Amino acid sequence: MKNNTYTSLTQEHRTRFERVLEHWLPTASTHPARLHDAMRYSALAGGKRIRPVLVYAVGAALHCPAERLDGPACAVELIHAYSLVHDDLPAMDDDDLRRGRPTCHKAYDEATAILVGDALQSLAFYVLAHDPQGTPDSQARLRMIETLALASGSRGMVGGQAIDLGAVGQQLDLPQLEDMHIHKTGALIRASVRLGALAAGADAATQDKLDRYAKCIGLAFQIQDDILDVEGDTEALGKTQGADAERGKPTYPALLGLDEAKLRAQRLTDDALQSLEGLGPEADTLRGIAHYIINRDH
Amino acid sequence: MKNNTYTSLTQEHRTRFERVLEHWLPTASTHPARLHDAMRYSALAGGKRIRPVLVYAVGAALHCPAERLDGPACAVELIHAYSLVHDDLPAMDDDDLRRGRPTCHKAYDEATAILVGDALQSLAFYVLAHDPQGTPDSQARLRMIETLALASGSRGMVGGQAIDLGAVGQQLDLPQLEDMHIHKTGALIRASVRLGALAAGADAATQDKLDRYAKCIGLAFQIQDDILDVEGDTEALGKTQGADAERGKPTYPALLGLDEAKLRAQRLTDDALQSLEGLGPEADTLRGIAHYIINRDH
Repeated sequence: MKNNTYTSLTQEHRTRFERVLEHWLPTASTHPARLHDAMRYSALAGGKRIRPVLVYAVGAALHCPAERLDGPACAVELIHAYSLVHDDLPAMDDDDLRRGRPTCHKAYDEATAILVGDALQSLAFYVLAHDPQGTPDSQARLRMIETLALASGSRGMVGGQAIDLGAVGQQLDLPQLEDMHIHKTGALIRASVRLGALAAGADAATQDKLDRYAKCIGLAFQIQDDILDVEGDTEALGKTQGADAERGKPTYPALLGLDEAKLRAQRLTDDALQSLEGLGPEADTLRGIAHYIINRDH
Repeated sequence: MKNNTYTSLTQEHRTRFERVLEHWLPTASTHPARLHDAMRYSALAGGKRIRPVLVYAVGAALHCPAERLDGPACAVELIHAYSLVHDDLPAMDDDDLRRGRPTCHKAYDEATAILVGDALQSLAFYVLAHDPQGTPDSQARLRMIETLALASGSRGMVGGQAIDLGAVGQQLDLPQLEDMHIHKTGALIRASVRLGALAAGADAATQDKLDRYAKCIGLAFQIQDDILDVEGDTEALGKTQGADAERGKPTYPALLGLDEAKLRAQRLTDDALQSLEGLGPEADTLRGIAHYIINRDH
């Protein structure tokens, strides 16, 4: 399944999501205007929207009304968007380009980019707590906030970024590389799936199945990212091909060889699909996403 | 009322609070250790702890058990601590010294300081959502999260920082200066008071009274900060006296003159005290804090 299949498979969710995100972000004229303008520039820059699509796809698999998924979908993408803004900063990855456009600190300035990230994070939790269309089950909503906060923080995504920064120029072995990815990207992907399941009121057994799915696609996603850094082309990626290798960052192809890395991504995809057994055709978008992750070219 | 009176008045709350904060922060050996070490360095650096003290003092005024206030007290201070770490960054205020010690990016590095701030913010929301000893009223807890997220974000504290950065070297008038402070410091002080009231299950009328109190002391606090920047001494402040004036930052004394600034702080304190009328001696700590704010020397 190629990118155009992902596009058609998730079109409805993504169209809906762009409206939702647009709604929750303060308008560009809201005081202080420069900050809000920069928040919108960073969050509304497009992208694959995989995390919110996962929230909707999990919800759809469990027959949850879409309006209950809007808030959680928005929250996970706001966290992702803030992390990109901060990761791009000169003191971090020092990237000038993101999705083919100047990064936030290039388009505005460094101080604004720091504040944009900070404010997008606050907004994520505001949306989950405030959302008038969210699940009426307050306990479930608190579990969603707890899940997202843990996945975002020092024992999740931010911890992964710290591990990543500490690993530049180091010789990581496979368990260390995997540990980094489990934190840096895996935690938020798992949280996206769990938020969808919580919004839908899933039972514990279903949550466990979906969590296994999420763990597998999270890791497969990262392996594919590393493969694309070797094989992809700069234009399709919207960022510089070979940038990770050049920085001396550890990658799966560097550790395993390209063929073995591809095989591992394929096995993870198979495992992800297997964990969806028992779910009906309503889970086909989840299945399609698993296929897409290792077949995408950017 | 001088600083030593604040110290004795709030000793019990502060002692309790240091234990609570210590408990919620991951240990320094938690993976990734450097990040967690830096989080503890930044959050456990002492300070006046005015925001958590306000949470406890409001709770005490409303007969709320202290263990219900621990989580909210911790959450507001984590937000405050994160904001200091980010405000000190080279791209922001570029401060080397905080409470007499090297700032986080000086003691560690810039990337770590960015991540420390990000993770302290996530932790604040985790604590509110997860806290097993927090109020069993899930609705109230969601209101607490909503309140803290709004007060922290682009329409609150972060917005205030953006306004502040945009104001350096500008000629602000009094409404503009006040607007900045209402966002930058006022929003989190109001949130602290509101979180205490929500934890205690206060009715709407009591919440309104306390909100008036919070607005008054928040602004008085900032005016006093500006006065101390003129009159204070570097050693007691733990930061460089005159630093704001030197940077061309607008201040109350610069706009109003020192005497008028002092008079305004006094009037706000009187208003704060008046809004506590009807509350009994259990609210004496709140009264003491209002006195302290304009009598402190750091």
